[in-house]
Amino acid sequence: MIPRLAITPGEPAGIGPELVVRLAAQPRASQWVVIADGAWLARTARDAGVALELLAFEPAAREIDPPGVLRIVDVPLPVAPRPGVLEQRNARAILETLERATDGCLDGCFDALVTGPVHKGVIADAGFPFSGHTEFLAERCGVESVLMVLTADALRVALVTTHVPLSAVPALITRERVARALELLHAGLRERYAIDRPRILVAGLNPHAGEGGHLGREEIEVIGPVCDAARASGMDVRGPLPADTLFTPALLAEADAVLAMYHDQGLPVLKHLGFGRAVNVTFGLPIVRTSVDHGTALDIAGRHSADTGSLAEAVAAAETMVLRRRRDAA
Amino acid sequence: MIPRLAITPGEPAGIGPELVVRLAAQPRASQWVVIADGAWLARTARDAGVALELLAFEPAAREIDPPGVLRIVDVPLPVAPRPGVLEQRNARAILETLERATDGCLDGCFDALVTGPVHKGVIADAGFPFSGHTEFLAERCGVESVLMVLTADALRVALVTTHVPLSAVPALITRERVARALELLHAGLRERYAIDRPRILVAGLNPHAGEGGHLGREEIEVIGPVCDAARASGMDVRGPLPADTLFTPALLAEADAVLAMYHDQGLPVLKHLGFGRAVNVTFGLPIVRTSVDHGTALDIAGRHSADTGSLAEAVAAAETMVLRRRRDAA
Repeated sequence: MIPRLAITPGEPAGIGPELVVRLAAQPRASQWVVIADGAWLARTARDAGVALELLAFEPAAREIDPPGVLRIVDVPLPVAPRPGVLEQRNARAILETLERATDGCLDGCFDALVTGPVHKGVIADAGFPFSGHTEFLAERCGVESVLMVLTADALRVALVTTHVPLSAVPALITRERVARALELLHAGLRERYAIDRPRILVAGLNPHAGEGGHLGREEIEVIGPVCDAARASGMDVRGPLPADTLFTPALLAEADAVLAMYHDQGLPVLKHLGFGRAVNVTFGLPIVRTSVDHGTALDIAGRHSADTGSLAEAVAAAETMVLRRRRDAA
Repeated sequence: MIPRLAITPGEPAGIGPELVVRLAAQPRASQWVVIADGAWLARTARDAGVALELLAFEPAAREIDPPGVLRIVDVPLPVAPRPGVLEQRNARAILETLERATDGCLDGCFDALVTGPVHKGVIADAGFPFSGHTEFLAERCGVESVLMVLTADALRVALVTTHVPLSAVPALITRERVARALELLHAGLRERYAIDRPRILVAGLNPHAGEGGHLGREEIEVIGPVCDAARASGMDVRGPLPADTLFTPALLAEADAVLAMYHDQGLPVLKHLGFGRAVNVTFGLPIVRTSVDHGTALDIAGRHSADTGSLAEAVAAAETMVLRRRRDAA
């Protein structure tokens, strides 16, 4: 059966809508259902010089649409967007696109969710408690913990902590949290990537992985014991390793994924290698979800110059995961 | 005049001595004076199967020795080393090699110092206050602050904080410290690399460089004002930038150096790109000093298999800096 993806372009004043309409000009390998304001997509396509026909989504028809045709679930915005200009009055409608896409995945109407970038600030400023897609999806799907994983080509990096100030990171590195992240990573690599026995590199928290306790004790008291327990349970885990040498090509070549303790420890090498092609994947959800790895890029919205690479890779990754899940279920 | 380098192999039980004797089999472009236990160098050469003639250093003779010949300043070790086995009773002699090399640079006998890896733990355990080469050299040279810079090919990364637990980093990110690091980096790029108008990228401390204060305020209160002041004084400085996208190829291509706030933010991409060729350079000292970027590697010491790449690059970098300084002084 043809995979059916729900796609949310995200912030209408950002580059999300133009990426979607430009990517829609390409041939595709799945059915795409875009959940957004149809009038704004049509206007964006016109401004981008892209021929686009919008058709209403029909749940009974599962087919791959030709280039230039998009199926949509229309969620009108109360205020016509302007590229680059945030508008609090549109925040509720943006959230509604996420709600409908997520619910459609949960009830089996859609096979996966692919998200464009939202702007956390404008949604929060509009009065909605929202700290990001990942947290939103966890709550809507009724799961307690999820894992943010960034992928670029063969490199996959998962983060124990994500969008918190650096000063808040050390207190969040607990045995429970590291162990849970390791479990989710291990399970996700098996389920989403069909890696039977995932090889995982775990970073330390401190420089030189604490250098035997001289530069911090989290490796001895927290991360090391979690790695030991994982190995004892049969997982192929190396670590805690110094983060500066963990990302060298020889070590990465022998691993399927890296578990980093925090955002800027894990992502510089990934984005260096895969900028424009990186994909954000959420492990731990009952639904398949992928996302672009970039933000709303308000500064270049409306110029129709943004790179569609990450969105194309996010779509391709979702398609592969859906087909893999079907095979596993068969 | 031929550059004359003082070379300290560092920890005798580590890979330093074998790297030096193996590199000594190659042709060289400067005069090398190795400050170490001559008997141990001879023994290491024999075990490595390298033909090596050791001659006493003669200050009056400035010439490039042929492959297989090393000039030495003999600093005997009280206990014969065993590869891989630390020996506290040798700590004092290891420190003496550094003292004599540094003093020789300060009094003009040597033009530069190239250091192999020492083991901080064994020196400290032997009762000597020693937290690393860089701090030792700063004190011996009578300077208050120095800057650790790692280089690999065209990439140069300087660190505002170095070997401290991650939890100690945020409190160390002060205006004074960031401004001083930026000054030392700017001056060092001019003096040591002859870059007339250095282009510097400055990282934020928090994910997404704080995202406008939502993920930390150091960018607004500390790093941003320092960058503004640097720009106002005419420096070519960009930042504070998010660390995950700072290291993408397009941005790096337009910069001469990166100022990172902490160890594992700055070094993963550098070591990914340049492992085995990376060099550690100290800015802010009155002497030219370069170093290998790796540790003592006690686990493989005595196998004579360690890569001489970083030591070779450290020597070449020191030679270039000495010649450049001569040109500037002329």
